[in-house]
Amino acid sequence: MSVPQFDASFRERLAELFRWRRDVRHFRADPVDPATLQALVAEASLSPSVGYSQPWRFVAVRDSTRRSAAIDSFTRANADALRGMSGEDAEKYAALKLSGMREAPVHLAVFCDTATNSGRGLGRATMPETLAYSAVMAIYTFWLAARAAGIGVGWVSILEPDVVTAALDVPADWQLIAYLCVGYAEHDEERPELERKGWEIRDDRAAMLYER
Amino acid sequence: MSVPQFDASFRERLAELFRWRRDVRHFRADPVDPATLQALVAEASLSPSVGYSQPWRFVAVRDSTRRSAAIDSFTRANADALRGMSGEDAEKYAALKLSGMREAPVHLAVFCDTATNSGRGLGRATMPETLAYSAVMAIYTFWLAARAAGIGVGWVSILEPDVVTAALDVPADWQLIAYLCVGYAEHDEERPELERKGWEIRDDRAAMLYER
Repeated sequence: MSVPQFDASFRERLAELFRWRRDVRHFRADPVDPATLQALVAEASLSPSVGYSQPWRFVAVRDSTRRSAAIDSFTRANADALRGMSGEDAEKYAALKLSGMREAPVHLAVFCDTATNSGRGLGRATMPETLAYSAVMAIYTFWLAARAAGIGVGWVSILEPDVVTAALDVPADWQLIAYLCVGYAEHDEERPELERKGWEIRDDRAAMLYER
Repeated sequence: MSVPQFDASFRERLAELFRWRRDVRHFRADPVDPATLQALVAEASLSPSVGYSQPWRFVAVRDSTRRSAAIDSFTRANADALRGMSGEDAEKYAALKLSGMREAPVHLAVFCDTATNSGRGLGRATMPETLAYSAVMAIYTFWLAARAAGIGVGWVSILEPDVVTAALDVPADWQLIAYLCVGYAEHDEERPELERKGWEIRDDRAAMLYER
């Protein structure tokens, strides 16, 4: 295969993909084709990983009891988070919709296989956290490829990782990195929902290049 | 702005970008235009973040003393890693080129601002590691946008994070996530260098969709 050239038109579309990605919490009921889902996971396997360790493990949660356990965990963790807030924050928080777990046709748990022998430890001696970081990049590849295919992804971090991991009956060395809702979004949006709903604004420091 | 549609041709090019990204360790000496670098950081600021916290901080390392301190840290950490290996692994490891720090025109350290008030803690109560994960996704956005612009990125994790952080004189709450080499690659490659050099092969588990 010859080396691909990425022209200005592609780069503009890529920037649009970043700009319109979104963390989705409002899903339509339409199912996602299983072959499409499998193809997105295969695409995610092209992600960078420390020492070529490829430690991500994608798990589709099909069983309704397991799915309910994850939803219940979110419900508890979300109620706990609200109890920790007061005043205007509590009011705003209570009004936010922070997961689309009930509606999303697909639940996907993504783990880091901390016992993998792939890569034989290369690059992880002084910064072992890079193994988990590798799984994070695979999640993001999946997210971008899904959005380009018109499929929305929402990352739910408001849950009890130990409870969810136990409910999914995975090997003991698998560490939960993310719990994803996957499906077709009700709306496409250019601005993050937490910005549109007045929770937070764009932070200028995130676009700065500091110098040292 | 109207909602962009991503067609099959864009999705194929996006998959090529994932496939040809590469972790680059062989750089040409050509400089990277500072305006291009700044534009790539601005593009990275469109990345997902837990609770819209946007915690990534990109730091260009210009000072030659600081740059040398990072290179020295890599040299020490790499020698330590080699001492921990034996037999065929040690032989193979010694023959690998694991960073292009000496040649790369740009060194970029990326931190997570663990003290940021942006996002006000939303989504981080039960999985606080998602703040660092947000910075990882910004690094990967930068990486993809750079590759699309013909600029290579190499992530160096073989160094002492405390030493490098101290050398860069950043706020105490900034946690080092990645140290990046940035510049034009000597060659474009479809296969990871660690695969071409016989260190590791593709792991089928990374492309699997497990079910539960």
